Amino acid sequence: MPVTFVPEQKQFSKEKFQKVNLFDTERMFCDIYCFEPGQEQKAHSHAENDKIYYVLEGNGDFTVGDETVKGVPGTAVLCPPGVDHGVLNSGGERLVVLVFMAPHP
Amino acid sequence: MPVTFVPEQKQFSKEKFQKVNLFDTERMFCDIYCFEPGQEQKAHSHAENDKIYYVLEGNGDFTVGDETVKGVPGTAVLCPPGVDHGVLNSGGERLVVLVFMAPHP
Repeated sequence: MPVTFVPEQKQFSKEKFQKVNLFDTERMFCDIYCFEPGQEQKAHSHAENDKIYYVLEGNGDFTVGDETVKGVPGTAVLCPPGVDHGVLNSGGERLVVLVFMAPHP
Repeated sequence: MPVTFVPEQKQFSKEKFQKVNLFDTERMFCDIYCFEPGQEQKAHSHAENDKIYYVLEGNGDFTVGDETVKGVPGTAVLCPPGVDHGVLNSGGERLVVLVFMAPHP
């Protein structure tokens, strides 16, 4: 049975933010992204894919298009196809984000 | 910008568990499911869709195929296409689960 306990999956690096895959199918993937303070996922886009960010812990700046919101635990953000999006850990704590993308890129 | 604060989206009913949509596109949807103690989503399957459950609060029994696991906050479960799956709030507290499905049914 495909089941995982997400708090045990967290991985951090001083080099760059870490992506840890939880589930990966032909149709979608689900990861956690783990950011040390100051680390970021630079703005980028996917032509045909939706991405959702859901903040698990910490806080950061989530940019979609030309808007930026402060995300805290419980914040969910949708990044539509073709729209630039990125994340900056602007807080003083580690930032952990659940990420879902469909269809699989 | 499509953003929501999930703790403010919770809805409960004594009648049955509640589904609250967060995001809905042509490619996927993202909901929260809100269960009072004893409420359940009965076993069912989707022929061509992946579903992910991620426990936000409370605890419950998550069944996929012929296996059942106890889910607590931080537990993530993948329900593959064609496999029966269901949720029972077997705890004494309210259960809130983040749900992703792709492709959109």
